[in-house]
Amino acid sequence: MSKTEKLAQRLEKLKINGMYKNDFYWTWDKTEDELDAIFTVADALRDLRERNISTKVFDSGLGISIFRDNSTRTRFSFASACNLLGLEVSDLDEKKSQIAHGETVRETANMVSFMADVIGIRDDMFIEEGHKYQKTFMDALDEGYEKGILEQRPTLVNLQCDVDHPTQTMADLLHVIHEMGGVENLKGKKVAMTWAYSPSYGKPLSVPQGVIGLFTRFGMDVVLAHPEGYEVMPEIEEIARANAEKSGGSFRKTGSMEDAFQDADIVYPKSWAPFKAMEKRTQLYREGDKAGIDQLEQELLAQNAGHKDWTCSEDMMKRTKDGKALYLHCLPADISGLSCAEGEVDNSVFDRYIEPLYKQASFKPYIIAAMIFLSKVKDPVAALREMEKRGEKRKDF
Amino acid sequence: MSKTEKLAQRLEKLKINGMYKNDFYWTWDKTEDELDAIFTVADALRDLRERNISTKVFDSGLGISIFRDNSTRTRFSFASACNLLGLEVSDLDEKKSQIAHGETVRETANMVSFMADVIGIRDDMFIEEGHKYQKTFMDALDEGYEKGILEQRPTLVNLQCDVDHPTQTMADLLHVIHEMGGVENLKGKKVAMTWAYSPSYGKPLSVPQGVIGLFTRFGMDVVLAHPEGYEVMPEIEEIARANAEKSGGSFRKTGSMEDAFQDADIVYPKSWAPFKAMEKRTQLYREGDKAGIDQLEQELLAQNAGHKDWTCSEDMMKRTKDGKALYLHCLPADISGLSCAEGEVDNSVFDRYIEPLYKQASFKPYIIAAMIFLSKVKDPVAALREMEKRGEKRKDF
Amino acid sequence: MSKTEKLAQRLEKLKINGMYKNDFYWTWDKTEDELDAIFTVADALRDLRERNISTKVFDSGLGISIFRDNSTRTRFSFASACNLLGLEVSDLDEKKSQIAHGETVRETANMVSFMADVIGIRDDMFIEEGHKYQKTFMDALDEGYEKGILEQRPTLVNLQCDVDHPTQTMADLLHVIHEMGGVENLKGKKVAMTWAYSPSYGKPLSVPQGVIGLFTRFGMDVVLAHPEGYEVMPEIEEIARANAEKSGGSFRKTGSMEDAFQDADIVYPKSWAPFKAMEKRTQLYREGDKAGIDQLEQELLAQNAGHKDWTCSEDMMKRTKDGKALYLHCLPADISGLSCAEGEVDNSVFDRYIEPLYKQASFKPYIIAAMIFLSKVKDPVAALREMEKRGEKRKDF
Repeated sequence: MSKTEKLAQRLEKLKINGMYKNDFYWTWDKTEDELDAIFTVADALRDLRERNISTKVFDSGLGISIFRDNSTRTRFSFASACNLLGLEVSDLDEKKSQIAHGETVRETANMVSFMADVIGIRDDMFIEEGHKYQKTFMDALDEGYEKGILEQRPTLVNLQCDVDHPTQTMADLLHVIHEMGGVENLKGKKVAMTWAYSPSYGKPLSVPQGVIGLFTRFGMDVVLAHPEGYEVMPEIEEIARANAEKSGGSFRKTGSMEDAFQDADIVYPKSWAPFKAMEKRTQLYREGDKAGIDQLEQELLAQNAGHKDWTCSEDMMKRTKDGKALYLHCLPADISGLSCAEGEVDNSVFDRYIEPLYKQASFKPYIIAAMIFLSKVKDPVAALREMEKRGEKRKDF
Repeated sequence: MSKTEKLAQRLEKLKINGMYKNDFYWTWDKTEDELDAIFTVADALRDLRERNISTKVFDSGLGISIFRDNSTRTRFSFASACNLLGLEVSDLDEKKSQIAHGETVRETANMVSFMADVIGIRDDMFIEEGHKYQKTFMDALDEGYEKGILEQRPTLVNLQCDVDHPTQTMADLLHVIHEMGGVENLKGKKVAMTWAYSPSYGKPLSVPQGVIGLFTRFGMDVVLAHPEGYEVMPEIEEIARANAEKSGGSFRKTGSMEDAFQDADIVYPKSWAPFKAMEKRTQLYREGDKAGIDQLEQELLAQNAGHKDWTCSEDMMKRTKDGKALYLHCLPADISGLSCAEGEVDNSVFDRYIEPLYKQASFKPYIIAAMIFLSKVKDPVAALREMEKRGEKRKDF
Repeated sequence: MSKTEKLAQRLEKLKINGMYKNDFYWTWDKTEDELDAIFTVADALRDLRERNISTKVFDSGLGISIFRDNSTRTRFSFASACNLLGLEVSDLDEKKSQIAHGETVRETANMVSFMADVIGIRDDMFIEEGHKYQKTFMDALDEGYEKGILEQRPTLVNLQCDVDHPTQTMADLLHVIHEMGGVENLKGKKVAMTWAYSPSYGKPLSVPQGVIGLFTRFGMDVVLAHPEGYEVMPEIEEIARANAEKSGGSFRKTGSMEDAFQDADIVYPKSWAPFKAMEKRTQLYREGDKAGIDQLEQELLAQNAGHKDWTCSEDMMKRTKDGKALYLHCLPADISGLSCAEGEVDNSVFDRYIEPLYKQASFKPYIIAAMIFLSKVKDPVAALREMEKRGEKRKDF
């Protein structure tokens, strides 16, 4: 029995009727079965590709990408995922993200979607605005489809918003699942999602929020650590708490990186900006208050500089389970003595984990492809089996 | 009988031998049968796609796009059309349009066309230069093909020049045809192509010129309205006059927006720049006279500001047939109180017409695809029937 | 017997086992049989395409392009080659080339390659850095593949580095072969690879180096001519000398353009920068010494201006064999009185050779496609025959 057939059998047992023609905003909208389905299909698509079997679903069609912030990894992952399924990428290049006007978003959404099957959007620049942009965009497509302007309703893959970064955290978790030998082995593992110092002070909150909102669903003991003032959105902490209770895991906060790292199985140290400051920053942008923005940046840099001891050093790593916790990062990392003087992680630590870090990243194209697959294919179990059976070669000779 | 079969039967009766391997510069180069063929094929391709039937003509090949001015709608329409037929888009990014040197155009044309099937060019920035660029480009390809440099001669789709904007006006008219219930119902309808105020004063003339050059061919009563000084190219007015005479419609000019809107069935109020001023501007650019350009812009802004009463207000709309004329715009519109203080149209009017406006835009990808199809496919009737018969699914599962 | 079958028979006799899964850095890494195989496959792919037979090898997959310097010709050639074989191009846009850090290159290489079949890189901006970038990139992919991060190892096509420009010089030579009526007619032909004045003084050395490193392998008499101070890399001169000895041709240097042009069968006059100065420039960039860079540029411009007599004038052309040598250029050329006041070539000379110049360029897409084909297809002879036999139409109708 092929790996894909085994995965098809797993998929068959999951309740995933809600996924067809549906969008992917954030992981907590999805049931455990639906998340499992994404992991399962991602593994199956990878297995088929590794055996040179074509996984094309479309003979033509467009995947529209909109990156309102820079991206290399996610851009190539989205391009890879679309190509794997037979879609061509068409990029809407907005040059520089601004806070967008609702009516403009509505019009743009329809204008670029006449032949689109999927829309991938990154909008993480402004707290309270990223998700709103995506929602406004997709609501406009609902309306366009209902009124017969669009002959089909493309589905959304959130490529990072101000709240969640699901293609990243799902890839992270699929990597963890592979490293731990199966989803059933996640229970009871300690995860340290911790803030770390970086000379660039304004990084998005979507990764720490996404991690605590996702990893708490699998019975893990998730600790969120950061210096005072670097709180994430309170509603996401609430979600994490509720998840932990339901899954039999735990979620707690600490102001000590040492505490979080102690006996951790998995560590995810990275920089992010304080939620409250980001809220204020959005307000200043709305008001066009340049002087206020500059002053806020100075304050944040000063605040930031007080926490250079929050770094994933060799000493810090020694505190983890057998000194060998699985180190995660969404990349690129700020590496002390390599990409900056003082940063998120010691060069020697980072260097030791390069292989697993790259593996972690390698799941993202398949996670995105699985998200598209499950929202566009009516009977995904039959589709996987048919792909296996027809056995069309991806490379012919 | 399927819709596509019905359309194939219609297509069968049209004389369109001149379209194969031919370019599309402007609509008045084409016969009525040829224009009808584009509408017919556009509808057929849409019908096939809506029924998930693949319309691929090419298994590989390139559509080259050259946008010498900004574009979102037309860019995505061209990408969609190419993808629908199996061509991959490769964009020649020239960053900023300049008045191009003939020899450079000749070389570039050949260098990007070795495997091109179609070339889409937008060059509307300079009066007297846009069409010239396209013509120079395609003449160079003629030469390249004759001399055996190119193994095939790609065909042109004019994506807007200084004279015409055929993919826009053909989409506009196909929309009108659908709204009016057939091309045979166009006769006698009053069309108001009118200037309207916008804070940006230098918009291309290709839309009003394209509209009066096209809509006059179907027996409609076309009125061109603008303030004194906003004349369009006189040779296009001549074409409109001749068309009207031949088609049994009419063409007249007026200096009153009220007059044009009175009992109109269709209104198309939008801003454009004065032809004479644009001629002068081109000359100043040729001479590199920056001071002259700045002064001209100031004069045009002042001239413009004197005509803020030329706007598609609710009161203006009330004058139209039953107060319910079909409102057209190529988008984006300058909307009073939304995208600008005073603009081309009242927000309440625009908002009421959003659905038909988006529908109007939705025809462009199919119009472009039909133009490509008819210039690349030798027997388009047989091709449509074969596509229907083979019934290859666009989306497989 | 079809042309492709004849070419398959030729290919069958060549020893090319080393090409499968291998990279293309520079021509002197390859055996004569391997170079012959590229010419042969390029001709076969062109023959198949001209007969509307699909040459798709891939049903999906990505060709990653990285242009660390501007490009139009090579960019479209790479896009064409990928499309011809069924790969979609995904471009890594690095905006402006900088001297790249090894660790960053290593990470980027893996991050963009998860579903890549081929990588095309241009990096010609800094002497001692261009090849290094490519090598670091591909070594990182070796490692990624060995460690199971990548499911396949994409292969490299060097789209120009600081040392060689193989897709250019192979296209140049295939053009020469066609013009001379076969590779067997190259022996004894005199080739003048000469420096020529251009107002832009810092052009890459990869073309002259690539030409002397390649043309000397076919028994030709290659003369490298330049003013004092415009030496190319000494190790490439060594390669040229060794090649000539082995092939029964010759390689010599001269300080006189007249000497080089005398009775030449082929002339390739173009500007390049002095190797020693480019070495110094790289060092200045490494040190971030802006003042030093500016001063070096001034010195180079002054040095350059002393050699305006090095130009491919009508008088100079008269010295060549029957006054009718084959004139080569990689384009764009600096044409006296057309694109600049004084440049590499007289307008009348250039204009007379436009047809062969465009033909020369037309081989590049096929050369690149052949390089990809031979590195990705296990049995290229069988593949060509199978393509011919299955006879799938590229354009269906």
